[in-house]
Parts: sequence; structure tokens; C-alpha cells
Amino acid sequence: MQYFEDIVVGTKSSFGNHPVTHDEVVAFATKFDPQPFHLSDDAAAQTHFGRLSASGWHTCAMTMAMVVENMKAHEQAGLGSPGIDELRWLTPVYPGDTLRCETEVLDKRPSSSRPEMGSYRSSMTVFNQHDVAVLKFVSIGLIRTRSGGKASE
Amino acid sequence: MQYFEDIVVGTKSSFGNHPVTHDEVVAFATKFDPQPFHLSDDAAAQTHFGRLSASGWHTCAMTMAMVVENMKAHEQAGLGSPGIDELRWLTPVYPGDTLRCETEVLDKRPSSSRPEMGSYRSSMTVFNQHDVAVLKFVSIGLIRTRSGGKASE
Repeated sequence: MQYFEDIVVGTKSSFGNHPVTHDEVVAFATKFDPQPFHLSDDAAAQTHFGRLSASGWHTCAMTMAMVVENMKAHEQAGLGSPGIDELRWLTPVYPGDTLRCETEVLDKRPSSSRPEMGSYRSSMTVFNQHDVAVLKFVSIGLIRTRSGGKASE
Repeated sequence: MQYFEDIVVGTKSSFGNHPVTHDEVVAFATKFDPQPFHLSDDAAAQTHFGRLSASGWHTCAMTMAMVVENMKAHEQAGLGSPGIDELRWLTPVYPGDTLRCETEVLDKRPSSSRPEMGSYRSSMTVFNQHDVAVLKFVSIGLIRTRSGGKASE
């Protein structure tokens, strides 16, 4: 189990191998982002996208699926995420693509008010099968301290 | 149809009335964010969340659903979004909640290289039925100019 004290700034990780399927692209968009370029090839052909592409939020959700899968092998005393900075959709994601993640720990700091926890920031870049970056963001993570704030431990 | 020239900085909008359902919270999390506090009340009770809450990315997706629904009544010559800044999940979102959006146009600028388009930034705040803010972010939108870059029009 990884705690705040175990986080090493500069650590890089690569993980994920997530197929983007036509049916899931259409199902996600139908429910959450029903714009023509996310619903069908024919409708997308009439737009600046030219062909069916995944909702940007679907790409974020697929990224989360890879993150959670990766956490199974690398358990953390995590306390969730307060947010994301500098999210950029760089290239359209298409059915048939396969996505993977590269992360790097940017910085960490103990909580000033709650000694039982700290936070750290990581960069996330998602690539497709052509090694083209499709999404990047900086995530903030909260994580327990091993000591739980008890200085004597 | 609204073009870049029609965007007025400071314009505020309120829209959306989106129910958060137990089944959709579990379905989204099962596919994209299968952490215990997003999968069942029993599993969530063992965690710092205490009860079942929606994946933060699900809240983003529900927000997009409200945005797209609102666009039906307020058509834009939109060209998609390059990204999001300062995204913060402020309060857990629970099954049974109802979400709504408040937006404000923060600034706009013509493209320096492509006179046929411009960009603008908007703040988004999502509230639950108790008027508690659950999510906020700043979105960047791309939009065509009415002139299409032809100065003589």
C-alpha cells in the first residue's frame, strides 16, 4: 500500500491498453453528448470532424478506466481527487483506436491543516496506437500519510 | 445561429434539470470508474465517502448532456472545445440529486492565425437541488466568425 511518504516526485508510469469501440462511442454520445460528429459516420461526414469520433468526456472516462485498472496492481491509500487542471483534447479519438497512458508525478505537499493527508499532482498523457497524444491533463490526488499525522510514529 | 461576433463577455445562462439515478451511477462506474464508493452503498459505507456517489467523470458527462440539450435552443456555429481548465469536484453527487448549470462568458478573442474562427472561455458551475455547487470548471470554446474571415463582409 502506497502512502503520501512513498510518492516520489519524477516517477513515471506507463499503463493501459484500451480499445475504443464503435458501439461504446455511439452509446456514450447518445446518453451524454449527442452531437452529430459523435453519433454516426454519416452525420459526422457533414461536420468539421469528417468522421465519427468519441466525445471528449468519453475519452476522459476511458482514461479513468485505465487508471482504476492500474490501481489494482499499485494500491494507494488514496482519498480521491479534488480536480484536474489544463485538460486538453489534442486529437480526435476514433472507433478502432487503442489508448494507453503515460503519467509523471510533478510535485507533492503535505496538507497544512490535516496532517493525516497530503496531495500530489501528476501529468497524464493519453496516446493512441500511432503514439499520437490525444488527451493530456494534470490531476490532483489526495492520499493518506503513513503516520496518520502522529509525529511519533 | 450564434457566431463569434455575437458572443458577449459577461453573459450569464442558467439551464438544466438533470436527475442522477442510482442505476446510471452504478452503470457508469462499472464501466469506467469501478471504485467501491461508486459501485454500491454497502461498499461505499466502508470508505471515506460513506455512501454511494457518482464518479466525478460521470458528473462531467451529465453536465455535457445538459450543455448539449441547451444548445438545441441556442444554436452556435461551434467548432468544438480544445479543453478545460480549473476543474474541481466540490461536493459528492448522490443518486437522487438533480443537477443544473450556471455559466458566464469570461472573455473572447479572435484567432491570430485563422480569421474564420475565434475562441471564448466560459465558467461553468453545476449545482445540486440544495443549491450547493458540486462541480466547476472553465471551458474553452471554438466558434466560427460570421464573416468567415472575409473582411469585406
